Amino acid sequence: MGFPKHLTSAIIRLELPKNDGGLILTKNLYLSCDPYMRSRMSRSTEGSYVDSFTPGSPISGNGVSRVLDSSLPGFKKGDLIWGVINWEEYSLIKDTSSLIKIQHIDVPLSYYTGILGMPGVTAYVGFYEICSPKKGDTVFVSAASGAVGQLVGQFAKLYGCYVVGSAGSKEKVDLLKNKFGFDEAFNYKEEQDLNAALKRYFPNGIDIYFENVGGKMLDEVLRNMRHHGRIAACGMITQYNLDQPEGIQNLFLIVAKRIRMEGFLVFDYCHLYPKFLEMILPLIHEGKITYVEDIVEGLENAPAALIGLYSGKNVGKQVVAIAHE
Amino acid sequence: MGFPKHLTSAIIRLELPKNDGGLILTKNLYLSCDPYMRSRMSRSTEGSYVDSFTPGSPISGNGVSRVLDSSLPGFKKGDLIWGVINWEEYSLIKDTSSLIKIQHIDVPLSYYTGILGMPGVTAYVGFYEICSPKKGDTVFVSAASGAVGQLVGQFAKLYGCYVVGSAGSKEKVDLLKNKFGFDEAFNYKEEQDLNAALKRYFPNGIDIYFENVGGKMLDEVLRNMRHHGRIAACGMITQYNLDQPEGIQNLFLIVAKRIRMEGFLVFDYCHLYPKFLEMILPLIHEGKITYVEDIVEGLENAPAALIGLYSGKNVGKQVVAIAHE
Repeated sequence: MGFPKHLTSAIIRLELPKNDGGLILTKNLYLSCDPYMRSRMSRSTEGSYVDSFTPGSPISGNGVSRVLDSSLPGFKKGDLIWGVINWEEYSLIKDTSSLIKIQHIDVPLSYYTGILGMPGVTAYVGFYEICSPKKGDTVFVSAASGAVGQLVGQFAKLYGCYVVGSAGSKEKVDLLKNKFGFDEAFNYKEEQDLNAALKRYFPNGIDIYFENVGGKMLDEVLRNMRHHGRIAACGMITQYNLDQPEGIQNLFLIVAKRIRMEGFLVFDYCHLYPKFLEMILPLIHEGKITYVEDIVEGLENAPAALIGLYSGKNVGKQVVAIAHE
Repeated sequence: MGFPKHLTSAIIRLELPKNDGGLILTKNLYLSCDPYMRSRMSRSTEGSYVDSFTPGSPISGNGVSRVLDSSLPGFKKGDLIWGVINWEEYSLIKDTSSLIKIQHIDVPLSYYTGILGMPGVTAYVGFYEICSPKKGDTVFVSAASGAVGQLVGQFAKLYGCYVVGSAGSKEKVDLLKNKFGFDEAFNYKEEQDLNAALKRYFPNGIDIYFENVGGKMLDEVLRNMRHHGRIAACGMITQYNLDQPEGIQNLFLIVAKRIRMEGFLVFDYCHLYPKFLEMILPLIHEGKITYVEDIVEGLENAPAALIGLYSGKNVGKQVVAIAHE
């Protein structure tokens, strides 16, 4: 398998079939491009936590849809939903178990692919549950302008931490410093020596590393972690397209520095979503949290948007707008 | 620096100097050879958590001594102590802050270098505090017949876990199965394919890995960990003598499998020593825990004993007996 390259056409009647046994007909509005989707493009099962895509069928991912018609109890025409949907303009959905009805519409609907969706809960769980933050901790976030990183940095600032982010362009570094309020930020592509860069921003070491990238950056971070530091392993995007992952050479420092490194997946924390919404909605409304999206228009541009994630083409959360209604 | 090679002689008068300002004179009985000592033979400070040895001075480590004379309050002639002592036959000690007076002498005194000393507390803390064990968990211990591993395996068995150990000889594997009560054990040197070996003993995966070796074994264990598994990183002895550590390639599995990997050092848990003694002494007396030592006689054989650790020459806890009194 490889990245999705082709769009195919099929005819769908915009009405529910008779005696359908319970379906909803949706118009799909926004699609989410997320790094984890790479693992669904492989047949390998080792370490995969979601099913592989089925070649020839539409790929699926998180998205936002409008219900056009429903023969299922609990859904009615006009409802807005988010959850796992197919990458297509309209869908007939039988299994609604992953779908959540949207209650708050005084925010951009696309937010349900990001700050109010999976990336938002990921940042929330990763920072508050996995990082064990303390006021004054030094926090480093890689891929810091991405869907999750931008939120982790802002959560950490609100918590009273010193926060530095890395990203892959001047534009992103500017965003980190000027829009998201990171204390410092750097463009990892312009650093000859990542160890030196980290020492520059963390002369006394890193208490918390929010890990999104893996590889060389992780190796250099390990050298700069403080004793009893925590690494929340959210993803390792630099490794997903390699035939052979890069070896991490400094892992033995986990012992000497008593580091806790913990992987986590948002799927284990769905029960926290209501609590998360309660926290995040006021922060959005009061302007205390901001969120940057990179919205590409049109389903035809979705494959390139997804592929672009892995080379960091997106600036902020990558969204595909199929329709604004 | 390198491994210790030479013994030197010096004269010490077996009496306290006058107006010494507070000293104890000790006869040193048992020395402990521990893997962490390798890090003290390097000038590099990165990741080291104990001071380097001073070339030309005796090296130091844990050991057991008899007090011959004392001008310090709290110590008197005849006392037995354990803690950090010099590798020499007699010592004059000013700083007693690392020394603990031995209260229980109805056990072999050498045990204070092992089951009743640092390795014992390491196994206790590592298993009960870091591994978060549950009855029925599948547990894998590497370097399983060593000073710490043999205890971890026995603790896990007492806890109701399924326990498998790896070691480097048939003799050690026999010990694991027949003396320490491990469910299974294997000689890693005879396995062409560590992944296959682990799959043989853990067809449904590993819940807890007690990590003593690092390198290739860790990489293959990561492939065999279950979701939400725990790795207690106690040491990585295979890496200590390499110029360049081996890269760990499967670390990204920490995310997909939500693994927690946590390094720890016994020095952070000294306060648990009384509680530990309360647990372990009855187990020893009732024969519910057994401990195998590899005792080398004579200070002159201490350097080879220490060096032997890193190629697994020792069978059980490596001790040097300077004198049995």
